[in-house]
Amino acid sequence: MELTATLWGQELADLSNERRRKPRAFGCTMVIDKGLGLTSFRDLLELAGEHIDFIKLAFGTAAITPLHILQGKVEWAKRYGVSLYPGGTFFEIAHAKGKHERFFHTVQDLGMEWVEISDGTIDLSLAERSRIIRTAKEKGLRVVSEIGKKTAGHLPSLSDFLATYQNDLDSGVTYVIMEGRESGKGVGIFDETGRLNRSYIEEILKRAEPTRLIFETPEKSQQIEILKIIGNQANFGNIPHNEVLALECLRRGLRADTLPHYFASCRRDTES
Amino acid sequence: MELTATLWGQELADLSNERRRKPRAFGCTMVIDKGLGLTSFRDLLELAGEHIDFIKLAFGTAAITPLHILQGKVEWAKRYGVSLYPGGTFFEIAHAKGKHERFFHTVQDLGMEWVEISDGTIDLSLAERSRIIRTAKEKGLRVVSEIGKKTAGHLPSLSDFLATYQNDLDSGVTYVIMEGRESGKGVGIFDETGRLNRSYIEEILKRAEPTRLIFETPEKSQQIEILKIIGNQANFGNIPHNEVLALECLRRGLRADTLPHYFASCRRDTES
Amino acid sequence: MELTATLWGQELADLSNERRRKPRAFGCTMVIDKGLGLTSFRDLLELAGEHIDFIKLAFGTAAITPLHILQGKVEWAKRYGVSLYPGGTFFEIAHAKGKHERFFHTVQDLGMEWVEISDGTIDLSLAERSRIIRTAKEKGLRVVSEIGKKTAGHLPSLSDFLATYQNDLDSGVTYVIMEGRESGKGVGIFDETGRLNRSYIEEILKRAEPTRLIFETPEKSQQIEILKIIGNQANFGNIPHNEVLALECLRRGLRADTLPHYFASCRRDTES
Repeated sequence: MELTATLWGQELADLSNERRRKPRAFGCTMVIDKGLGLTSFRDLLELAGEHIDFIKLAFGTAAITPLHILQGKVEWAKRYGVSLYPGGTFFEIAHAKGKHERFFHTVQDLGMEWVEISDGTIDLSLAERSRIIRTAKEKGLRVVSEIGKKTAGHLPSLSDFLATYQNDLDSGVTYVIMEGRESGKGVGIFDETGRLNRSYIEEILKRAEPTRLIFETPEKSQQIEILKIIGNQANFGNIPHNEVLALECLRRGLRADTLPHYFASCRRDTES
Repeated sequence: MELTATLWGQELADLSNERRRKPRAFGCTMVIDKGLGLTSFRDLLELAGEHIDFIKLAFGTAAITPLHILQGKVEWAKRYGVSLYPGGTFFEIAHAKGKHERFFHTVQDLGMEWVEISDGTIDLSLAERSRIIRTAKEKGLRVVSEIGKKTAGHLPSLSDFLATYQNDLDSGVTYVIMEGRESGKGVGIFDETGRLNRSYIEEILKRAEPTRLIFETPEKSQQIEILKIIGNQANFGNIPHNEVLALECLRRGLRADTLPHYFASCRRDTES
Repeated sequence: MELTATLWGQELADLSNERRRKPRAFGCTMVIDKGLGLTSFRDLLELAGEHIDFIKLAFGTAAITPLHILQGKVEWAKRYGVSLYPGGTFFEIAHAKGKHERFFHTVQDLGMEWVEISDGTIDLSLAERSRIIRTAKEKGLRVVSEIGKKTAGHLPSLSDFLATYQNDLDSGVTYVIMEGRESGKGVGIFDETGRLNRSYIEEILKRAEPTRLIFETPEKSQQIEILKIIGNQANFGNIPHNEVLALECLRRGLRADTLPHYFASCRRDTES
């Protein structure tokens, strides 16, 4: 990247002039791994590791990935400064079976440092969420929590969202994910066609810190909407592995959809 | 997988408690290969070979795949206990040219053990189907047949379907495929949005053996519908290569969409 | 391919009997690379290099691809007789910054031989287009130009299209691209559902040479439409990397969608 930027000229490689390097606390990209082979996984990191902060092993795939591949992914992710972690649904299964402490233990044994605590399919009271988050933290894990149900059409009320958000931050989570599933359609902040509920987001942002939120936005149009509202400090989740460079181009103004804005600001600079 | 399951605890790795190991006669997954390079092909098998029973070289791609790659795919598939075979459309081309015996011969020469006999674009009477199936069987090939036309909106009548189904089984086929194409939309059992014609399937299942049917269901929602009707013994076809682990998670109850059912049954177990 | 065709019988490997070999002036396929790792890139070329004429590094991805991977892609593409070039949007960024000469210089330094000149997000008069095209040509680059805006719903008038087309050919471009973006929806010749504006194309073809046009058609249905109008000499652009063999099957009549036509002509041959 360094060298590539030098080659084209720094000013052509990042029109936003504000893209931070890793490790970064915000402006993060979380990729969803629905089943990459180990060679594809390495291939992705070699190409785009610099633009990836997290890779989530989707839902329960960690349970059926051959052990040597799972271990290989942990190692390669570490080498590229990427945090690999199992999907929230897998935690929920463990919790439903009364085994979430063993789950945390195994996550750590494997060398992973993060877990996702969610209740998309189970019910957790705020007190239970706190207790579980604290248990994970005491074991030395870092925690990202998720708010929202997997049920079609479900969206938490603003006050419920904000109460859970505050509860989780107080309990020690680093990020809170807004549920978008892998499809980005008909769930949480998206309607059936994948369109973002913008007014809901804007209300949330009056009380929540954008840098502590991760938006599950598998679709380009959703990423653009969030970039327009929050800018480059936005954290994105559930990015398909083959869309990482495309999202990074959106962030940097290297794609038509986010170019006009930069051209407009260029013109303004010249005129002033 | 063995080791991975041990790691997380067997009860977290398969909530269905009924997933059979390969080689299996039902509960099969057939992947559609629309053009994987050899490295990607191996990568897929290494990750998910245990969950794949068949890989179909889509339509006529076998004809334009470089020979060393075709041979490599045959070898790697064998090593992972997966049956590779050319798409039904390729058989139809051979038949239309009066060359289907040569076609069967070449399939065998390449080391493949299965063929698909279909008439999605040509017309075959029941007697012709039987004759062709028997010819393939006599040459030592195993046969999967497909019922249905590639034409948009086409769906065979129930009696036509069942007559062909019985004709093919009597002639020696192992499985009968229900046409869904690669898109799963606007053809056979799917309407233009990809929704399944559930009552049609239910009628079929009154007279046909579900374990002898393969459902072409490229979309997740279609797989879920079939799983709800038939359960884990269902055979799925035209699964995109990057959806194999996701389907396996659906089968095992490791994904939100099939979790509530298992949670419900857990509760029932406790209450009883 | 040679060997594969021999294996199945030449008449099964190309029902069109008119597919030209590379290097070819028309019947070209341009793949869009939105972020392939180097291993995937090689894997694609090994499988399908014979069917690929151009690979475009989508929008500004060339700017954020690590240098050794960028150089690796150039080398591998050359080895397979494929021309790799950066997306038109990247040229537009360079032009907006007043740096397009440096841009051309870097393209050449990297060993690439083609550039795309477009004004999807900037404004260029015909005279400016000519000047820029001539500058690139003088540096020894070959040029493909693109006509059309990235704006949703935008379609140039027929007379504007034809004037620009003629202007660009007179200035020395080899091909003119009809904008379809990466989505093939709601832009240029496609409506919001991706359906082709067939009458527009037919009007264009009364005055323009089909072999000098490249149609950006990411969707199968779009490719089929163009094949029906123009036939196998059509040039296609923005083909997803995992659809190259599928498109080649459409061209050769090895896929259901283009089979009936060939069967029909077979029948006609027999009857006459």
